[in-house]
Amino acid sequence: MKKAWLALVSICLLSSTAFAATVPDGMGVLPERVPVPADNPMTKAKIELGKKLYFEPALSKSGQFSCNSCHNLGTWGVDNQKFSIGHKWQRGGRNAPTVLNSGFWSKQFWDGRAPLLEDQAKGPPLNPVEMASISEEEVISRLTEAGYLPLFESVFGKKSLNYDNMAKAIAAFERTLITPNAPFDKFVRGEGDISKAAKRGMQKVADVGCTSCHSGPLFTNNEFVAFNYGSDAGVKSVTGKSEDDHLFRVQSWRNVAMTAPYFHDGSAATLGEAVRTMAKVQLGTKLSNRDVADIVAFLETLTGEAPEVVFPLLPRSAGQALNWRD
Amino acid sequence: MKKAWLALVSICLLSSTAFAATVPDGMGVLPERVPVPADNPMTKAKIELGKKLYFEPALSKSGQFSCNSCHNLGTWGVDNQKFSIGHKWQRGGRNAPTVLNSGFWSKQFWDGRAPLLEDQAKGPPLNPVEMASISEEEVISRLTEAGYLPLFESVFGKKSLNYDNMAKAIAAFERTLITPNAPFDKFVRGEGDISKAAKRGMQKVADVGCTSCHSGPLFTNNEFVAFNYGSDAGVKSVTGKSEDDHLFRVQSWRNVAMTAPYFHDGSAATLGEAVRTMAKVQLGTKLSNRDVADIVAFLETLTGEAPEVVFPLLPRSAGQALNWRD
Repeated sequence: MKKAWLALVSICLLSSTAFAATVPDGMGVLPERVPVPADNPMTKAKIELGKKLYFEPALSKSGQFSCNSCHNLGTWGVDNQKFSIGHKWQRGGRNAPTVLNSGFWSKQFWDGRAPLLEDQAKGPPLNPVEMASISEEEVISRLTEAGYLPLFESVFGKKSLNYDNMAKAIAAFERTLITPNAPFDKFVRGEGDISKAAKRGMQKVADVGCTSCHSGPLFTNNEFVAFNYGSDAGVKSVTGKSEDDHLFRVQSWRNVAMTAPYFHDGSAATLGEAVRTMAKVQLGTKLSNRDVADIVAFLETLTGEAPEVVFPLLPRSAGQALNWRD
Repeated sequence: MKKAWLALVSICLLSSTAFAATVPDGMGVLPERVPVPADNPMTKAKIELGKKLYFEPALSKSGQFSCNSCHNLGTWGVDNQKFSIGHKWQRGGRNAPTVLNSGFWSKQFWDGRAPLLEDQAKGPPLNPVEMASISEEEVISRLTEAGYLPLFESVFGKKSLNYDNMAKAIAAFERTLITPNAPFDKFVRGEGDISKAAKRGMQKVADVGCTSCHSGPLFTNNEFVAFNYGSDAGVKSVTGKSEDDHLFRVQSWRNVAMTAPYFHDGSAATLGEAVRTMAKVQLGTKLSNRDVADIVAFLETLTGEAPEVVFPLLPRSAGQALNWRD
């Protein structure tokens, strides 16, 4: 009996070692929770309010666009467009990044100009090519008209319907949008296997050096790195400093297979093309077709379980149209 | 003891009579189920597929619009716009009617040009001012690209990804979108009360004659009636016949308080204005301010419980952008 137990333990140890041995240093399971800022604790009511606001077309001047229009939770937090369609059919200048797992990033936007989701959420409603509202007051006035006041007051207290709290509620909801249990995570935990091609790809991204930036369980070091590709000046377009030229936030690989097209300019239509270009431009490496296919197979194992979201019913005043402007 | 029971029974009978007595003839509780065409039985898998298609922006040429863009389930199946925004920011010519309870109507569209939801669902994807896809083939090709084939085959059988089945699945989902348990329904069932103003309004709509068209538990006779208001020719714009001039489908009052603005041209911004205009144009009646307020109070009791919908995850091919056109 004792012998049998020992054998079982040995098998478990061996198999877990076998799994672990194949995972390059630094790679790991998606963390279970995102960091939460001290001044914006997550509560059930706040998350629910944030969800309504996330799906709220009243954030846009036209009443047409919500956060979900470009960061669609039905399509992995993106819109699959090269550049998103905004107010009066204008196109943005950068590919919409996914909202999924965005609570893990310490920089928001491609140029990282907002450190927190609370800051990020304040941008699009007032961006003239996105939601195009004229001012914070205009947004708040429309939310008031729609009937949001009691919802804000039950979460934030008296007279709390303001732009900062709007952003806080949206950020709290967004922090729930994480995607655990990707095939890769199950593999690391010894709960499942991934294909041989994916395993080769996993080793290849370490050997080639992709993981010097796409590192850790999130497959990003959350830093700015120069990507000399295209005319977009990246961080420099925010700071004006020449040393920031073509710096971009390193994107996470989590769910990357589901967020085509790729790069800040959406110029790579397939993941294979993106992998090939990155290896060439960033690492001076020409990958073979087989290497590209292996790496793509590995990246596909990073697609997790999308969060289940009950579509929210939004407040509206009875018998009264909202005041949109064209 | 026996006496006490009798007294209780009497009170119940009396109160239920009291309730019943105040409800004018023909009005009643929302039916529990919508009629289902024999050739499109509802199954769980079909409803789930239809839900994905309902939220699927790949139905539109631009990848921007889904059914839910204009018939938003977050805002009672409408978009609160006068005329909806469509492809390249074009505006439609008629106010988007709600999808909620639409399975009960025997005519779809304001001009009733489609008898069934299966017919209606085929319109918007190909309408040049709405989703603007060029052909049924284009829509089906995009759905194929996104990965819908196995979903269709598991519902409809081999090689079944086609436009007819797309419409059938959407219709099956839409038939689940009903709104039971409005305050009025609870009142009729003796489970709750409505305000005195609402009761006066309930009687008033019968006395004035609104309910000659807005009749039955759905508050519509599902017929065409002339509404000589505005330049839109209604049914005539479909048939070309002069006797069809300005005929429109009688709209249901169910959830009407939540679907502003009003009329086929969205010209009435408030429910009060809509009530006043209808009484004047259709019945030659000038309502007092109090009558209008009472009727509005009654109409507000027709807001039911919105269906709970889990936001669907849409199929997408891994690592591959969809092919949108501007």
